[in-house]
Amino acid sequence: MTFEHAFAIGAVGAAIALVFAFMQSRKVLKFSEGTPAMQKIANAIRKGAGAYLKRQFRVVAIFYVVVVAALAVLAVLGHASPFIPFAFLTGGIFSQLSAYIGMKIATKANVRTANASGESLNQGLKVAFASGTVLSFTVVGLSILDVSVWFLVLRFIFNQEPAAIAENMVMFGVGVAVFALFARVGGGIFTKAADVGADLVGKVEAGIPEDDPRNPAVIADNVGDNVGDVAGMGADLYESYIKSMHAGIALGFAAFAGDDRLVWAAMFLPVAIAVVGMIASLIGTFLIRTGEKASQAQLLKTLRVGTYTAAGLAMLASAPLAYFIMGDFVGWLGLFISVVIGVVAGCLIAYFTEYFTSTHYKPTKELAKASETGSATIIIGGISLGMKSTVAPVLIVVVAIVASFLAAGGTMGDIYIFSLGEGANTFSHGLYGIGLAAVGMLSTLGITLATDAYGPVADNAGGIAEMAHLPAEVRERTDALDALGNTTAATGKGFAVGSAALTSLALLVSYINIATDHVARHGGYVLDEVTGYMVHATRGTLFQGLDLSLDNPSVLIGIFLGAMLVFVFSALTMSAVQRAAQSIVMEVRRQFREIVGIMEEKVDPDYAACVDLCTRGALKEMVLPTVISVVLPIITGLLFGVEGVVGFIGGATVIGFVVAVFMCNAGGAWDNAKKYIESGELGGKGSDCHKAAVIGDTVGDPFKDTTGPSINTLFKLVSTVSITIVSVIAAFSLF
Amino acid sequence: MTFEHAFAIGAVGAAIALVFAFMQSRKVLKFSEGTPAMQKIANAIRKGAGAYLKRQFRVVAIFYVVVVAALAVLAVLGHASPFIPFAFLTGGIFSQLSAYIGMKIATKANVRTANASGESLNQGLKVAFASGTVLSFTVVGLSILDVSVWFLVLRFIFNQEPAAIAENMVMFGVGVAVFALFARVGGGIFTKAADVGADLVGKVEAGIPEDDPRNPAVIADNVGDNVGDVAGMGADLYESYIKSMHAGIALGFAAFAGDDRLVWAAMFLPVAIAVVGMIASLIGTFLIRTGEKASQAQLLKTLRVGTYTAAGLAMLASAPLAYFIMGDFVGWLGLFISVVIGVVAGCLIAYFTEYFTSTHYKPTKELAKASETGSATIIIGGISLGMKSTVAPVLIVVVAIVASFLAAGGTMGDIYIFSLGEGANTFSHGLYGIGLAAVGMLSTLGITLATDAYGPVADNAGGIAEMAHLPAEVRERTDALDALGNTTAATGKGFAVGSAALTSLALLVSYINIATDHVARHGGYVLDEVTGYMVHATRGTLFQGLDLSLDNPSVLIGIFLGAMLVFVFSALTMSAVQRAAQSIVMEVRRQFREIVGIMEEKVDPDYAACVDLCTRGALKEMVLPTVISVVLPIITGLLFGVEGVVGFIGGATVIGFVVAVFMCNAGGAWDNAKKYIESGELGGKGSDCHKAAVIGDTVGDPFKDTTGPSINTLFKLVSTVSITIVSVIAAFSLF
Repeated sequence: MTFEHAFAIGAVGAAIALVFAFMQSRKVLKFSEGTPAMQKIANAIRKGAGAYLKRQFRVVAIFYVVVVAALAVLAVLGHASPFIPFAFLTGGIFSQLSAYIGMKIATKANVRTANASGESLNQGLKVAFASGTVLSFTVVGLSILDVSVWFLVLRFIFNQEPAAIAENMVMFGVGVAVFALFARVGGGIFTKAADVGADLVGKVEAGIPEDDPRNPAVIADNVGDNVGDVAGMGADLYESYIKSMHAGIALGFAAFAGDDRLVWAAMFLPVAIAVVGMIASLIGTFLIRTGEKASQAQLLKTLRVGTYTAAGLAMLASAPLAYFIMGDFVGWLGLFISVVIGVVAGCLIAYFTEYFTSTHYKPTKELAKASETGSATIIIGGISLGMKSTVAPVLIVVVAIVASFLAAGGTMGDIYIFSLGEGANTFSHGLYGIGLAAVGMLSTLGITLATDAYGPVADNAGGIAEMAHLPAEVRERTDALDALGNTTAATGKGFAVGSAALTSLALLVSYINIATDHVARHGGYVLDEVTGYMVHATRGTLFQGLDLSLDNPSVLIGIFLGAMLVFVFSALTMSAVQRAAQSIVMEVRRQFREIVGIMEEKVDPDYAACVDLCTRGALKEMVLPTVISVVLPIITGLLFGVEGVVGFIGGATVIGFVVAVFMCNAGGAWDNAKKYIESGELGGKGSDCHKAAVIGDTVGDPFKDTTGPSINTLFKLVSTVSITIVSVIAAFSLF
Repeated sequence: MTFEHAFAIGAVGAAIALVFAFMQSRKVLKFSEGTPAMQKIANAIRKGAGAYLKRQFRVVAIFYVVVVAALAVLAVLGHASPFIPFAFLTGGIFSQLSAYIGMKIATKANVRTANASGESLNQGLKVAFASGTVLSFTVVGLSILDVSVWFLVLRFIFNQEPAAIAENMVMFGVGVAVFALFARVGGGIFTKAADVGADLVGKVEAGIPEDDPRNPAVIADNVGDNVGDVAGMGADLYESYIKSMHAGIALGFAAFAGDDRLVWAAMFLPVAIAVVGMIASLIGTFLIRTGEKASQAQLLKTLRVGTYTAAGLAMLASAPLAYFIMGDFVGWLGLFISVVIGVVAGCLIAYFTEYFTSTHYKPTKELAKASETGSATIIIGGISLGMKSTVAPVLIVVVAIVASFLAAGGTMGDIYIFSLGEGANTFSHGLYGIGLAAVGMLSTLGITLATDAYGPVADNAGGIAEMAHLPAEVRERTDALDALGNTTAATGKGFAVGSAALTSLALLVSYINIATDHVARHGGYVLDEVTGYMVHATRGTLFQGLDLSLDNPSVLIGIFLGAMLVFVFSALTMSAVQRAAQSIVMEVRRQFREIVGIMEEKVDPDYAACVDLCTRGALKEMVLPTVISVVLPIITGLLFGVEGVVGFIGGATVIGFVVAVFMCNAGGAWDNAKKYIESGELGGKGSDCHKAAVIGDTVGDPFKDTTGPSINTLFKLVSTVSITIVSVIAAFSLF
């Protein structure tokens, strides 16, 4: 039995996920929208979010046309597979579609959550969480569908061999990558420009509370939650998810090339794990419910029960799966262990993120205390906390790399877990293990992304409850849901960056495989089918491989440039938020000055003007960072060859990972230190400590919601762009 | 003619430098100490600085005893050369001695500068700058002496061959490295704890001006300038300077091993360049003078004339030098070009540092404007500016690496500048070029370090003038000298980190050479004298070399861990400053409360208590970061072998370089944005903008004076420790 046909099962799994997502959306829509006042507010948010996505789409479309045209030219010149322009479009369109659907339902669920919270806490949770599952299962379903259908097309319509399929697959991610970067950067700038702008004038200058309908930027702020935390997060994880499969397929091919049966099995295993994880997630969602008088700890517990059950089921199911698919390979058990390592690593990173950013633990409490000596000390303290918090995620990723590498049959020194016998390519087996760990970590995305996407819906619901003057008890319930959402947002970010790092490393390895092949062929070497070595067509000499050593100046320079890109990108996105926020400040001040009657609630402020300003600011500011991220790896490659690119991807991934963790955690801790003080500690709201903490939180806003999460999409984009243009680089690089 | 005897010239050069330093110290001491009031203040500063150094010495001594004992054990077990413990001591003691002498003269020159400024601006500049040259020429002289004498001892007393000398040399830096880290971290914590503590209570709470004698922390603040900016900076650059020679010697050996004449010549060339650069610097110092009514631009100009003349002379002299020493090697001209590239790169990095941190250019002016919307925006703006400012230094280092590599005969792709003929090891020639660039960059340290070390003396002079109530015109002159010192401090930091990066990269390459040899020998391979390859003693097979590819999990993990170390180290040193500063705040508050009559200037505050507190704080807090920096590369090596260590050094150097530049420049820009506002812009002193800028400056203090500069010493230490224990790692690593 070979597994080339099994990809049809992937398509079936995709269909299940999509049907479930559809059913969940029906469930959400059955709830009532509440009073006309609530509907009016919700409509404004929905309209703003829709308008943003539409205009973002236009910008992205221009970019798509340019890139597709460039890819088509490459394909015509023989430097890219002819499928790539088409796969670019399916990937780009599917990920946009997920983001669109997720946001659409979120902007319908927010008002329903507010209304259902009037009934009971459990009803509110139900609506908000169900809307999260719509995003997550759409993401999962469309990803698996994309991968499975392309495989079937390449194999059964175009009769491609495993080598060609593997190389095509790993190049198919570029459309997804471009959209993810746009969505994260654009959404991140939008949401923080609105948030910071609304706070600076509304809270600080005009002295009106958060979510007050008199604040002209309040709708933009709520729109921001949707475009940043729903659409942006969805696009980011769509990319990680599909690319973990892409890389898994390519690494599976590399590990078992030449074995007619196992090569298909190894290529299918990542997709099979994704399907099983999807079903485990589906089961997990049914466990999420709560009683009426639930404390925050209990709310958190129910989410955890759902998530951990799904993770446990996915792990359990992977053992028979690995045996069934890869059972006649001596190391099948190791492959299963690699998957388990990935799942566990994901949970651990999420846990440590919570430890460093939640008010329940020491670090954030101590950070709040640093506000006693003013804003400078809380800023230094937060930067220090964020930097310290990189230790656990780095160690977890390091252990995951080593353990999955060894478990899958790799050797380091004289150490291995499963001996694959003399002559086996243990190195590529080990690398396949790293790829499977990435797939494992992301396998339960159906539930982890849902718990994350639920947050902005609850946040919006709170805003609507406030603006529509709903009774205090409703607001209390939405507050409880919102507070929970802040925790899941922080852990979700930890999970997003951890999975992005593992995915990018898997792509790095795939890049090296593909680049070696391209450089050899460009140098006149051909594959000797008998030995499996690359041999020169006329001279008969053996291809010596790439020099990827750290003492090769090209590699070292690549690392430098990759590290530099992370810092430049961070600088650009942070100053973008600052500029966009400043324009909101001006506009809100103008409305307070020029529109008479806002303060007395006689006239509505011009909400749309602020939404429009955020939209234009975000779209304008996202272009430069995106262009630099696409162009710099290409320039590096043209100058320093594939060796330089390998260094570049490595540098960008490692430094990107560390900086992203630092920024997300510092920002999360500042946010919660402020909330901790607002809960009555250290003098409570309005105290000097609180003022210092507000400054910390404002600094942290672009850290945690713009730059930090955008860096995930940055280094994934770098590896994908590099893979796509490998043939050009192999042919035309200067050094 | 062979050049093994030429090292005696090095000893002569060292003697010239030391005699010049001695003469300059005589010159300083000839100036008058001024009034008894001034002498009293100066004595307090001198006593405090002396007490700190003495106690730091005790802590360092304990550390030295432990390390020397460990090295002795390694030597006895055959895992280290028996010379290393002794070289550890000469290096450690010489660098301590330089720091001690430099600080001694600085604490004598400060009061003399204040007094001489009463006479004229030129007199003040003369004293302060002369005291800077005492530090710089002591550093240069003792370094060259250490290298030359050890060479002569190894060669002519112990009859060592080039290979053994090269390996010994590069391991001799560990004592220097340990002291540099201690001095930078300890001094950095001391100076910022005192500065921040004095400002928070004195300026903000008690409302008394800076440098007011009623502030109990004011002496500690002045002591801090000496222990941080004189002793710490001196130790840091002592390390870079001597290690550029060490690495140059080792890389010279590697490039010309086997050629009896050229190998000695190539090993001598770095020392010869250092001697020539020293003489060029000596000439440059005579050009530094000023008229009475000099503007700040004119003061800066005279320093620049001196520095650039020295750089020009050093470059000019390198051409005949390279021809004379290496003239029968076809690529001698390329070696000269490599030196020039290093000198130019150093000047360029210094220039761009100034561009990003000086009030004369756009970035800092724009940063000051960000204070209009409060402290949060100026903080985000500063972080963004610092991150953006990493571009130029990274590109300069990258271009310097490529250009010096190619110029010295390396090839990248099909590109080379000097063809060395078929069969030549162009790779190791190219790497020698990188080593020579590092030597070149540091060759004029005699004058660059002097312009830098002059700053704290001028700063102290201003403080003494204020405290002793000298006439306004004196204060004006010391202010002019001090403002200039701030600019040179910023450019000095840029130069320090640039040279540290290039030195560390040269050490990385040396490490790879040595590690390859050790791993081969440990695996049973021996050198085949005829072919120059490592061949297995019994099997006769060829040694395959280390796998330093980026897709080797050990290398990748090393990079991750190296990056993590930079972040953990930054976090620890920043929170150390915060804790130490907080203890000063408490103490100053206590004195104001308990000692009656301070405010009326009837009673002197207890200055010594604050000095003591800073001393204890700094010494206590510097232990953990130091220990982690020593232990982490060892653990990485024991787990992941020499491949892991190579990744670790690479990761720590690249990320360390970028983070250090970011921190130094962000801190420098915040400091100057505040000064820009204080000069009357944006509302001037006391305005809301000023308050926001003060918070920015306080955040920047540990950035630019503790953590940023300490990172230089961190990654140099990492490479040195790794080299020293290479034999143990080769023998005992787990993977």
